[in-house]
Amino acid sequence: MNGSVVPLGKPRPERADAARNRELLLANVREMLAAGGAGSVTMDALAERAQLGKGTVFRRFGTRAGIFRALLDADERSFQEQVLYGPPPLGPGASALDRMVAYGQARIAFLLDHHSVARAALDRNQPAPAGEATITRVHLRMLLGQAGLNLPDLDTLAVQLTGALEGPLLLYVVLPEPETPPSPAAGRPLAESWSVLVHRLLRAEPGTTPG
Amino acid sequence: MNGSVVPLGKPRPERADAARNRELLLANVREMLAAGGAGSVTMDALAERAQLGKGTVFRRFGTRAGIFRALLDADERSFQEQVLYGPPPLGPGASALDRMVAYGQARIAFLLDHHSVARAALDRNQPAPAGEATITRVHLRMLLGQAGLNLPDLDTLAVQLTGALEGPLLLYVVLPEPETPPSPAAGRPLAESWSVLVHRLLRAEPGTTPG
Repeated sequence: MNGSVVPLGKPRPERADAARNRELLLANVREMLAAGGAGSVTMDALAERAQLGKGTVFRRFGTRAGIFRALLDADERSFQEQVLYGPPPLGPGASALDRMVAYGQARIAFLLDHHSVARAALDRNQPAPAGEATITRVHLRMLLGQAGLNLPDLDTLAVQLTGALEGPLLLYVVLPEPETPPSPAAGRPLAESWSVLVHRLLRAEPGTTPG
Repeated sequence: MNGSVVPLGKPRPERADAARNRELLLANVREMLAAGGAGSVTMDALAERAQLGKGTVFRRFGTRAGIFRALLDADERSFQEQVLYGPPPLGPGASALDRMVAYGQARIAFLLDHHSVARAALDRNQPAPAGEATITRVHLRMLLGQAGLNLPDLDTLAVQLTGALEGPLLLYVVLPEPETPPSPAAGRPLAESWSVLVHRLLRAEPGTTPG
C-alpha cells in the first residue's frame, strides 16, 4: 500500500475556459451559501448571478444536487491536500499518533462545516453516497501501519475507526432535517473522545499530544 | 442512568385476536423468506398464504416495507431480551469487558443475518431509520460505566463505538445492492477487530476473553 497517495480520483483534464467557468460558478455558489444558505442556491439563481446561460450551468452540474456535489468534491480535494502536503500534525512530519488525533479533529470540523452542503448534495432518488468515507479509511489505515501496531488485521480496524469517526456525523446528513443543525461546538466532545480512543488504541498516555 | 432497561419502546397492548394475527403473519413471512427470499414477500402473497383478507394485512403493515419493519422489530426485541436476560457473557453475569466483546459478536451476526430484511424494510421515500443504533449505544454506554473507565465523557465514546460496530454493516443496508450480499464469514474479521478495539480501550490484554 502506497501510504502517500489517497485515491480520491484525479480531476479530469479540462479546457481552460471550462475550468474558468467551473471556478466562477463555484465561487458564486459559495457566496450564495454564505449569504442565504443552501436553500437560496438554485440552477436559475446561479446562472443569473454568474451571468452565464442556464445551459452552461445545466451541462456543468446536471441537477441542483449536482451543484452541491461539485462543491463538496472541490472542498474534499483541498482537505486531502492539507492531509497529504500541509503542515504537521495534520500533514506529514508528526508521529502517527499525533497525526491520527489531528486528522480526527480536522475531519470532524470538515463534516460539521459541510453539513448543509452534504445534505443538499444528496439526491433523494439515489442511495447515500459511499465514497465519502474513503479518504478517512485509507489515511487511518496508513497511520495504523506507521504506528507499529502488532495486530493482524489493520484493514478491518481502519474500517471500524472510520465508522467511529464519521458515523455520528454522517447520521446528521442521512436523517430527516434535525430541529437544529449541529453547531460547531458539537465537534468538541467528538474530537476529545476520538483522542481518547486513539490514545488507548495505540496504548499511549493522553496529554502527550499537542493541540 | 438505569443500566438494566434499554428503551426500545414497549409493545402496545393488543387484543388477543390481533396478536394472534400478527404472530401468524410474521410466521408466514419467515417461511416465505426462508423459501424464496425477500423478493417473494408481497402483500398479496402473504394474505393468500396466511388465508387472511388483504385488508387485514394492509391494516397491519401499511406497505410491503412495513412487513419487513415489523419482522425486524420483533427480532430486535428477541435480541434485546437475550442481552438483558439471557445467559452470560451476552447477558448479565460476566465482566463488562467480556460482555462488550460478546455483544459485538452477537450484534455483527444479527446485522448480517438481517441484512436483506433491513434493506427491504427501508422505504425509499423515507430517510434511513435512525433508531436502529439505539440499543447498541445504550448498552455500550452502560457497559462502559460498569468497566470503571476513568474518562469524562462516556456518552460520546458510546456513540463512537456504536459507529465502529454498526457503521461498516449499516453501509451494506443503505448502499445500492452489492454484487454479492455479505456472507456470514464477513462477520469474523469485524468481530475479531472489535475485540481488539475493546480490549485496548479497556486496557486489558487480549486472550483473556472466552469465545
